[in-house]
Amino acid sequence: MYTEPLQILIDELGKLPGIGPKSAQRLAFHLLRVSDEDALRLARAIAVMKEKTTFCERCFNIAEGTLCAYCNDPGREGSVICVVEDPRDIVAVERTHEFRGRYHVLQGAISPIEGIGPERLRIGELLSRIEPEAVQEVILCTNPTIEGEATAMYLARLLKPLGLRVTRIASGLPVGGDLEYADELTLGRALEGRHEVQA
Amino acid sequence: MYTEPLQILIDELGKLPGIGPKSAQRLAFHLLRVSDEDALRLARAIAVMKEKTTFCERCFNIAEGTLCAYCNDPGREGSVICVVEDPRDIVAVERTHEFRGRYHVLQGAISPIEGIGPERLRIGELLSRIEPEAVQEVILCTNPTIEGEATAMYLARLLKPLGLRVTRIASGLPVGGDLEYADELTLGRALEGRHEVQA
Repeated sequence: MYTEPLQILIDELGKLPGIGPKSAQRLAFHLLRVSDEDALRLARAIAVMKEKTTFCERCFNIAEGTLCAYCNDPGREGSVICVVEDPRDIVAVERTHEFRGRYHVLQGAISPIEGIGPERLRIGELLSRIEPEAVQEVILCTNPTIEGEATAMYLARLLKPLGLRVTRIASGLPVGGDLEYADELTLGRALEGRHEVQA
Repeated sequence: MYTEPLQILIDELGKLPGIGPKSAQRLAFHLLRVSDEDALRLARAIAVMKEKTTFCERCFNIAEGTLCAYCNDPGREGSVICVVEDPRDIVAVERTHEFRGRYHVLQGAISPIEGIGPERLRIGELLSRIEPEAVQEVILCTNPTIEGEATAMYLARLLKPLGLRVTRIASGLPVGGDLEYADELTLGRALEGRHEVQA
């Protein structure tokens, strides 16, 4: 028998992904114990984020205005678009410092099991960027999962006829990885994608 | 490179117990995706809980007013106090329907490792209840952990000289448990606490 406001908070926390009833209880009791200031800082952070953060009108990355930081940056090459599933993937690509083009966030991947068809993704919006932005290459940078591969294949089939270069990121052994512990799918991909050694 | 409001939210979520940086990111992106209404319901639940929920002035259980539901209930026996570490433990005891007395929440347990000494617990407040409430029995219902046992021993030493009955909940095999899988400490306690069979 908790107080009603506490029970409501437990219920709301329990709706978050990966937070079961026990975790929700634990988090609620943590918020009960901490100072008002600390707890309200979290409440405020949620409200401010919802008020201020939007999606880029062009590439569907997160943004604070109509366009995201990359679409707003005139220093980025407009002729190459790197297609990712999620805004978090952009952060991962940026960390490599290997890419200076623009992005397009699909906001998901095709997944028949979860009932996500291509119409749920930002695919139409990607296609409509090709001509006006004079795109010459699209890098399919979806995850190397069943869903990500299916999405990449689907996009390749749509994009190839438009006469542009369509590439897919390589699969293989992670750098620093160990052959002995590699799963056979990854090792198979690594063999398939082998390239001539420059000596 | 996330937007600032999103990064602030990730940081705040990461301060919650058991939520690492990756989980914080996942939760923040979930809140980004859901409707404003859904996200703000959580923010509001935190604020309302902090505003409305207090600790009982007598037993330190959670309360909506000055006293908690049990301290306010005239049907509860005042001469027996069940001492627990946490308000959640009260919910567990209540589920047994075996106890009709009052409670006292220590708000923790003695833990030298975490630097929690007896002075951090609501022990003085417990002692000051014994005489005015004419308490005849104190049930030490702290967890059967090292910290809980140490706390129970410490309290027993303080309470015994006051001339009241001091009891400790039994340790032993859980009902439905399996001897084969019982750890030796639990089984040892079960043997130690054996009682004559009434036939």
